[in-house]
Amino acid sequence: MKGPTIGVFDSGVGGLTVLRAIHRLLPDRDTAYLGDTARVPYGTRSPETVTRYAENAARFLAQREDLGVFVIACNTASAVAVEAVARLVPIPVIGVIEPTARHAAAISPGGKIGVIGTRGTILSGAYQRAVARSRPDATVIAEACPLFVPLAEEGWTTVGDDVAEAVARRYLSRLGDIDTLILGCTHYPLLEGVIRGVVGPKVLLADASVAAAEEVREIVGSRLPEASGRPPVRRYYVTDLPNGFAAVAERFLGAPIDAPIEVDL
Amino acid sequence: MKGPTIGVFDSGVGGLTVLRAIHRLLPDRDTAYLGDTARVPYGTRSPETVTRYAENAARFLAQREDLGVFVIACNTASAVAVEAVARLVPIPVIGVIEPTARHAAAISPGGKIGVIGTRGTILSGAYQRAVARSRPDATVIAEACPLFVPLAEEGWTTVGDDVAEAVARRYLSRLGDIDTLILGCTHYPLLEGVIRGVVGPKVLLADASVAAAEEVREIVGSRLPEASGRPPVRRYYVTDLPNGFAAVAERFLGAPIDAPIEVDL
Repeated sequence: MKGPTIGVFDSGVGGLTVLRAIHRLLPDRDTAYLGDTARVPYGTRSPETVTRYAENAARFLAQREDLGVFVIACNTASAVAVEAVARLVPIPVIGVIEPTARHAAAISPGGKIGVIGTRGTILSGAYQRAVARSRPDATVIAEACPLFVPLAEEGWTTVGDDVAEAVARRYLSRLGDIDTLILGCTHYPLLEGVIRGVVGPKVLLADASVAAAEEVREIVGSRLPEASGRPPVRRYYVTDLPNGFAAVAERFLGAPIDAPIEVDL
Repeated sequence: MKGPTIGVFDSGVGGLTVLRAIHRLLPDRDTAYLGDTARVPYGTRSPETVTRYAENAARFLAQREDLGVFVIACNTASAVAVEAVARLVPIPVIGVIEPTARHAAAISPGGKIGVIGTRGTILSGAYQRAVARSRPDATVIAEACPLFVPLAEEGWTTVGDDVAEAVARRYLSRLGDIDTLILGCTHYPLLEGVIRGVVGPKVLLADASVAAAEEVREIVGSRLPEASGRPPVRRYYVTDLPNGFAAVAERFLGAPIDAPIEVDL
């Protein structure tokens, strides 16, 4: 049952930052990305609804592709749906929260860790619990930042942008004294420069994309069939194809993509 | 087939500004509000998807309630789906765009009209066409303002709020010289003070809620059965009940609401 393809699921385009990290670590592997663009954003929805959406997505991608691992790149869905999805598909299921929290716990000098994310992610408490499991002495301060996603999608992410900086100052000043900051939403790496400017050079930033990709590499190396040797197939599915999708996707992936396939979950 | 109840549909909570205006004009009428909170926002979705969602909503509310008129309070859905919904249900269907555009065309001193809304509304060109029909000599300048919705939902709407003012200046400075501004999204009346501060006291503001409610009153007066005389029934349906829903709803409606009923469309 375990196929060669890495499946990556996100509520929209944000998970492309995770996919990009996987492409870098595992350039010869087939990948299939599913962005639930018809129902994005998940960050404002209830846990039950997000879980149902994640189950729909896993069922679809497992039927359509020969998957060996299923990555939930969306932080909100990772916060509430990893176990439900793991019961549904007979392959390893990876969320972004556990690896990112472990990474942050490992690099934090003094255990003073901030977490920012969508309202859904922060209210779930998933990062707070995951950090505590890795490092029981850590203190975690969490803050939802609902304006960061539209800021990133608008492209107002340049250092010096007065709107981006005013928004970042408003949210990040609430975190107090931290030494490490988890960027707990796939959109936030696009704002890294602005966030860095506000928190200062001493705070370490931990983002989900690299930590999750490392975990995928371990599973792929130990459990998946060898890569085929031919050029990799990289497929993209979306549930809605709104105006401007390609431009936003390329901003996230840092490269052009093959035409996405529109599907109904 | 024509019942006594006024049905109001929106992608989420924003349409409560329209419902509030209807309550003020027609305080003795039964109303039923449906907020598609599981799939909000519509502003970033394709016209086909928005039309399908609006059809789902109309079918649901017409089955559940004894409707005499169906109001599409969401600007994005009004921009693309009024005709499709009108084919589906045998009662009058009102969108917010036609009445708002007519009102703006009527009050504009020099015919220099700005329109702001979601990306979906602005790209549809619906306001631009509707203003031109009412006043062919008008010039219309349109601008999508994706950050206004999350700003309103965050409650950062106070005059003097540095984030709200920076965002408003960024968007509104693109409109150039206008004498009238259409607030083409149900969330925007919450930002009226901030918008007014940026555009100055001479620009007239036209928002959808009052214009649409006036149109509803006309239809109700001429075509619906008399009100019952008993206290009105005001029902609320939502497709998802996220954390903080009640607080956001009360911010929009300016009053507490009965417990919403969660439904699946």
